[in-house]
Amino acid sequence: MFTTDLSEAEVSALRANKERLANDLHESCQWGYGIRWGEGSTDTGMQRLALSGEDKSVRDWFIQTMKDLKCQITIDEMGNIFAVRPGRRADVPATFIGSHLDTQPTGGRYDGILGVLSGVEVIKRMDEMGLETEGGIGVVNWTNEEGARFPISMISSGVWAECIPLQRAHELKEVPTVASLPTASSAPETMKSALEKIGYLGSVPCSYKSTPMAAHFELHIEQGPHLVSAGQRVGVVTAVQAYRWFRLNVIGRDTHTGTTAFEHRADALYAFAQMMVRAREVAASKGCLASVGIIEVKPGSVNTVPGAVSFSLDIRGPETDLVVEVEKQLRSDFDAIAAAEGAGIGKPCRVDWTLDFDSPAVKFHQDCISCVEESAYAVVADAPVSDTKSLVRPIMSGAGHDSVFTSKRVPTSMIFVPCKDGLSHHPEEFCSADDCATGTSVILQAVVRYDRKRFA
Amino acid sequence: MFTTDLSEAEVSALRANKERLANDLHESCQWGYGIRWGEGSTDTGMQRLALSGEDKSVRDWFIQTMKDLKCQITIDEMGNIFAVRPGRRADVPATFIGSHLDTQPTGGRYDGILGVLSGVEVIKRMDEMGLETEGGIGVVNWTNEEGARFPISMISSGVWAECIPLQRAHELKEVPTVASLPTASSAPETMKSALEKIGYLGSVPCSYKSTPMAAHFELHIEQGPHLVSAGQRVGVVTAVQAYRWFRLNVIGRDTHTGTTAFEHRADALYAFAQMMVRAREVAASKGCLASVGIIEVKPGSVNTVPGAVSFSLDIRGPETDLVVEVEKQLRSDFDAIAAAEGAGIGKPCRVDWTLDFDSPAVKFHQDCISCVEESAYAVVADAPVSDTKSLVRPIMSGAGHDSVFTSKRVPTSMIFVPCKDGLSHHPEEFCSADDCATGTSVILQAVVRYDRKRFA
Ligand SMILES: NC(=O)NCCC(=O)O
Ligand SMILES: NC(=O)NCCC(=O)O
Repeated sequence: MFTTDLSEAEVSALRANKERLANDLHESCQWGYGIRWGEGSTDTGMQRLALSGEDKSVRDWFIQTMKDLKCQITIDEMGNIFAVRPGRRADVPATFIGSHLDTQPTGGRYDGILGVLSGVEVIKRMDEMGLETEGGIGVVNWTNEEGARFPISMISSGVWAECIPLQRAHELKEVPTVASLPTASSAPETMKSALEKIGYLGSVPCSYKSTPMAAHFELHIEQGPHLVSAGQRVGVVTAVQAYRWFRLNVIGRDTHTGTTAFEHRADALYAFAQMMVRAREVAASKGCLASVGIIEVKPGSVNTVPGAVSFSLDIRGPETDLVVEVEKQLRSDFDAIAAAEGAGIGKPCRVDWTLDFDSPAVKFHQDCISCVEESAYAVVADAPVSDTKSLVRPIMSGAGHDSVFTSKRVPTSMIFVPCKDGLSHHPEEFCSADDCATGTSVILQAVVRYDRKRFA
Repeated sequence: MFTTDLSEAEVSALRANKERLANDLHESCQWGYGIRWGEGSTDTGMQRLALSGEDKSVRDWFIQTMKDLKCQITIDEMGNIFAVRPGRRADVPATFIGSHLDTQPTGGRYDGILGVLSGVEVIKRMDEMGLETEGGIGVVNWTNEEGARFPISMISSGVWAECIPLQRAHELKEVPTVASLPTASSAPETMKSALEKIGYLGSVPCSYKSTPMAAHFELHIEQGPHLVSAGQRVGVVTAVQAYRWFRLNVIGRDTHTGTTAFEHRADALYAFAQMMVRAREVAASKGCLASVGIIEVKPGSVNTVPGAVSFSLDIRGPETDLVVEVEKQLRSDFDAIAAAEGAGIGKPCRVDWTLDFDSPAVKFHQDCISCVEESAYAVVADAPVSDTKSLVRPIMSGAGHDSVFTSKRVPTSMIFVPCKDGLSHHPEEFCSADDCATGTSVILQAVVRYDRKRFA
């Protein structure tokens, strides 16, 4: 049976297998399970940093699973893993379902993992039904989407899209805060050395030219509160907000805490504290976000005023221009804060900024959005409410996803499902088996619809 | 020649050997020299954390030096090293000169080191002159005075004074920030294991009962700006301000930086930032100081709002009551800050305090103060100014010193000499060879005067 032979009603009837999906998802979480929060066997978070030993294990599992499903495997120079179930036509690129298997240091079982596992379920469901597609269907696991270990998020889809140079990515060093984790060695690892160490430095160039796609669909938990608080079941993601990541250094002067009056200090940590308070004020005034996740202080002694502070700053907003405005304002405000601290001794603090990563706002492709929307309406149609369409809403993503970069090169869009309390990047991140299955049914229909559209 | 045979004029004429003192001091700095700030061979700071490999080397050197000077060596259970040059009377305790050879991670060549080396010079000068004392003269190197590696300052004089239990001291763990230094192993070391590792866990009980003293004198750089800015040469230290060290934990909730509105956050680092700003306000309003030297953030990922922050807080003030008032106010203000952050999700931050160390304000002993004052006037008497007495001033110490604890058990006082820009706990900490010698001449005369008074 070919997708192009199905009736509209038959497409709308396609569903994922909820139990199998849940089983596979939690099976894949056996490597790197993190902090326990409940009694159940799956009541733990995840700690599976990109290219760690745990990440190697789940990658091996993913490849074996896809090989068992007769998929063709490609591993590129960034360790991205592409598994393709061939379609009727050998000469066209596949339609991909993609996300990531790496997690935050205190992450959960759904962020990224659900996206990849939905792809596995789609292939299993198609096999089981004997459903053939015109173009192939692929599942991709992108490397280091989180940016938690190597501090550029979505870096490997970024290299694939030729938006980030391969060399820059290969040379990127892990953040110091994870260096204490058992997965990391004492000297900070680069992405390239980490890829080599776990045997995932592939030989295929990391580029949309070498590994082309027809389209990229991604299922993800919302990671925010909108769907769950409105009781809605599917978000049709139309856009992704803008963000920029910076590393800031504040340089002051080490001095004795007991003998140095406030006006004789150039206290880099006190300057930081004022900066962080100010960052929230400025961001809030423009409907944006500003967050600090990493801070290091030197020399790190109870009775020495710190002379050096280094911290990460993550600025986000619905429009690229707003993010730029917040940055501009903070650059000027932080300079003023630094200049005041230490002015009394003629040695004011200094602050410098390094832009690590810039992700402008993104709008997804209308063809993909339409496929997702039609599929979402179809999947929720049997819900026991009068207006089932109200269970679906268009939504903007607050987080970045690999779809941001695939959208630069191929038609792309995403599907969101609700997660408990809108909580993510937390061990208690949770998405019910029903919601996981709903999202997977939507992505199953969406790739089928897209395949039909392509060859209509 | 006996001290008790000297005339007043002969005592007043006693002087240290400036060149020998400088040579010995910099010789002792060959182990653990830190950050270079100038071209000269001695233009570096020091990084000699307590009980590190470098600290072992300088301890070995100190013991050999004192043995060569025919001193009797005692090492106690805290690794304190006592070297005694016997006096005429065998049945009385010695008068001690003491300080410490350990440094801050970014320390200088004078804090503590000058105090011990002044003792070495006093013994050498007495030997050279054939000067005999009635009671013995001792030099003591106290372990971990800085509290930089093991976060209780003056801990080993504290155990000696029986103000800190031996077990608590032995079990104290090194701070995490120095764990990355080559001197520390990966798992945090306790004081006891660190003492064992470098072979300085002595068998003599650490107590003023086992190693009694007649008195304790300590020469130190001021570490503050008063002497240097007034052009004065000697501070007669009459008191030490109060201080308390705390470790605070702020517990919030990890969550995604990109998808979590400010009002849905319990951002432990944002709470910290407000706390630090508030701490300075409150301390300043009461003429006190409040400082944060160490901060750790978990989980430490650019795009995760930190759910846990741990930081050190050092509160100081001229009166114990003032420090208590600041603490009280901050406990209440920090609670309010924590309660507000996360209130929007009904999961406010929490903050808890642990008191690591409490050092009430201290007044030194009038007998010792008088010996120091008379000696200071005598040493500066040849200065080319009309009112030489104006070069000497009484002063309160902003920093803690081992003399704080010895003062609980035996007559004690201190001598300050100026340091460049009042800067300390910084690689560029500097005290001229002249000022080092002035201070050493004062302590030489002070112990002689004290010996004469004891047996008058
Ligand atoms: N989805 C997700 O958490 N991605 C990480 C990149 C980001 O910080 O938005
Ligand atoms: N003198 C000195 O720096 N001592 C360390 C203890 C303190 O923090 O005051």
